[in-house]
Amino acid sequence: MPSISEKGLQMPASPIRKLVPYAEAAKASGKKVLHLNIGQPDIRTPKEALDAVRQAPITTLAYSRTEGSAEYRSKIAQYYAKHGIAVEGEHIIVTTGGSEALSFAMGTIADPGDEVIIPEPFYANYNGFAQANGITVRAVPSRFEDNFALPPIPEFEKRINQKTKAILLCNPGNPTGYLYTQEEIEQLTALALKHDIFLIADEVYREFAYDGRKHHSIMTQAGLENHAILVDSVSKRYSMCGARIGCLVSRNKEVIQASLKFAQARLSPPTLAQIASEAALDTPEQYFTEVIGEYAERRDILIAALEKAEGIRVANPGGAFYCIAELEVDNAENFAQWLLQDFDIDGETIMVAPAEGFYSTPGQGRNQIRIAYVLEKDKLKRAAHILEAGLQQYNKA
Amino acid sequence: MPSISEKGLQMPASPIRKLVPYAEAAKASGKKVLHLNIGQPDIRTPKEALDAVRQAPITTLAYSRTEGSAEYRSKIAQYYAKHGIAVEGEHIIVTTGGSEALSFAMGTIADPGDEVIIPEPFYANYNGFAQANGITVRAVPSRFEDNFALPPIPEFEKRINQKTKAILLCNPGNPTGYLYTQEEIEQLTALALKHDIFLIADEVYREFAYDGRKHHSIMTQAGLENHAILVDSVSKRYSMCGARIGCLVSRNKEVIQASLKFAQARLSPPTLAQIASEAALDTPEQYFTEVIGEYAERRDILIAALEKAEGIRVANPGGAFYCIAELEVDNAENFAQWLLQDFDIDGETIMVAPAEGFYSTPGQGRNQIRIAYVLEKDKLKRAAHILEAGLQQYNKA
Ligand SMILES: Cc1ncc(COP(=O)(O)O)c(C=O)c1O
Ligand SMILES: Cc1ncc(COP(=O)(O)O)c(C=O)c1O
Repeated sequence: MPSISEKGLQMPASPIRKLVPYAEAAKASGKKVLHLNIGQPDIRTPKEALDAVRQAPITTLAYSRTEGSAEYRSKIAQYYAKHGIAVEGEHIIVTTGGSEALSFAMGTIADPGDEVIIPEPFYANYNGFAQANGITVRAVPSRFEDNFALPPIPEFEKRINQKTKAILLCNPGNPTGYLYTQEEIEQLTALALKHDIFLIADEVYREFAYDGRKHHSIMTQAGLENHAILVDSVSKRYSMCGARIGCLVSRNKEVIQASLKFAQARLSPPTLAQIASEAALDTPEQYFTEVIGEYAERRDILIAALEKAEGIRVANPGGAFYCIAELEVDNAENFAQWLLQDFDIDGETIMVAPAEGFYSTPGQGRNQIRIAYVLEKDKLKRAAHILEAGLQQYNKA
Repeated sequence: MPSISEKGLQMPASPIRKLVPYAEAAKASGKKVLHLNIGQPDIRTPKEALDAVRQAPITTLAYSRTEGSAEYRSKIAQYYAKHGIAVEGEHIIVTTGGSEALSFAMGTIADPGDEVIIPEPFYANYNGFAQANGITVRAVPSRFEDNFALPPIPEFEKRINQKTKAILLCNPGNPTGYLYTQEEIEQLTALALKHDIFLIADEVYREFAYDGRKHHSIMTQAGLENHAILVDSVSKRYSMCGARIGCLVSRNKEVIQASLKFAQARLSPPTLAQIASEAALDTPEQYFTEVIGEYAERRDILIAALEKAEGIRVANPGGAFYCIAELEVDNAENFAQWLLQDFDIDGETIMVAPAEGFYSTPGQGRNQIRIAYVLEKDKLKRAAHILEAGLQQYNKA
């Protein structure tokens, strides 16, 4: 039998992979499972987006342009202009989800053996894209106690060497919910310029900033034009994760040219989803006001419940829709499995993501879980209660 | 300014890239351009597929499963069963186009520095996926005079070494239109087994076999279970290239497991397109009868016209919807550019793909073009006439 690649063998598995069979078994046994483990919101997709697809006068569903349609790209540029980011359509490549933008960005800036620095904990699939491209991830620990604020710049500098091609940032963060301050973004800008490396910002949650705080994009930083690469997506913004539309944005022409060649190989982003995504840009502001309001309330409910729960500490998220909770357990994965297998309240239990998979430093995050507050408030209250009661019972046993 | 990756610099550009500005200029000047240069059929997408999307009761456009929905995968398995291929849903990963299946297959079987053998000329994007994965392509020349039949097996064996991981086949071929015989597939099967390497077949044109000839899939070969990887797509089959749905099929569990990890990193294939693709499986047989009939007629018209044209020789395609024509010119790219820039008949000209980009051996195919017969018969007749008349005038000048 022919052997598969080392690369394939070493591709990281999803952090919740081991739990999936337990969740399935729980459901098969009749339990209801509240999913706090994935970034799949229950929020409705804007009607504008769905209607556009329903009404599109298509007879032949043809390839779109490799880089996305000219109309859509210029409408995206207008969206950014409204958010204080000055880019043109030519700086944008429409991708198959933010995922593909991450993959293009990594392939464009780094060769096998090169390094990318990422504050940890971080979105686990960064490991997958890095591994697929032969890139080494160098993690810089951020601290639970600081709500996962930017680690001190010297911690980054320690890890910069000849092979370092970029710093990758998620703002606001998954899994941390941390929203970087203006000052932090400026520090990173100076650092990238000083060492002449790329600064890649994954801003797929850019819209989700709470408490009236402002999101600070790397794309607004003067002097960073050739160093900044933005990864974006419609997935969370319009609750249309299944569309698979995102974009890569850069004012660096070489970056765009190379990414475009990666894009040409895969021909084009999905046409139906692009129609939906273009129409989504016409979503009335009211939608966002409501959605952001809803997430903020959910966050408040969840954080309040967890803060008063025994044996649970929680980092307070300023954006996105995740938070990291530290539990009084040795191994949060075992506990998460136990919740699915051996616990329920009135036939209902929860599935959470063990946080260890979001760290690349071995052993880190073992007593932490990530909670996605993507469920409506009543369910979220029940979920917080299940977590607290479950933890008590688990620790008694 | 930070430098981009070697990989990015070396990514191959599309074979028609240099011509695109000339095509745009031609259109801007008011010329009509008949596109024979791309595999984008004008055939209508089955109504079943489009209606399914229009009527889908979606309120939140959610991620689908990473590997594709269980229902869709088992329906795909039924499709294969009808075509004499015994696979189950578990052997199938739904991908974002055949393109992504190619990318997963390469990542799964080869590490940077490994080699894949491909009969040439071949689909140019194989180079892109190979380059993105650091894989070296070893081309085995097939001959115009043989209509690009399988090169002799010793030609493959000469190129097999420790680093050889797979032979990649396109059946029927793009750009050649060649449909492999049962015997050829058996020879390749024996070869793959003898050297214990993978046999990857890109069968995205599997449905397009003419003159009552049968398509022979590698998936029907006994003994090849662990060695065969099938790449497939809805793009051409249902003329829904813009959907971006394909699949990777293998009975080799390790291949599926590793590909699934690449798939997990990018989350899921497009949901709307998957709805369309699942419904497309219910397309009545009549659709295919008509479509295959239409392509066969187009091929006959095109080949007949080219065979009697002066200065043109054409290889006769048994499948897909491409053919390679050899022209009495030194450089077919210059001629293709001239057609766009300096020639028209009644305000109309043609765009063809210079074939050099489909060869990886330097200098090969320089006097050849690829013609995609994806236009209706009247247009195709005009296009053949433009090609012939253009060639005469070009060679007089
Ligand atoms: C931080 C982050 N980046 C990127 C993505 C990729 O999203 P998509 O490919 O759906 O745009 C996700 C999805 O959860 C994410 O959380
Ligand atoms: C031979 C071959 N393989 C694969 C593809 C990829 O097609 P898709 O990604 O649209 O399925 C194409 C498209 O033209 C092709 O010609």
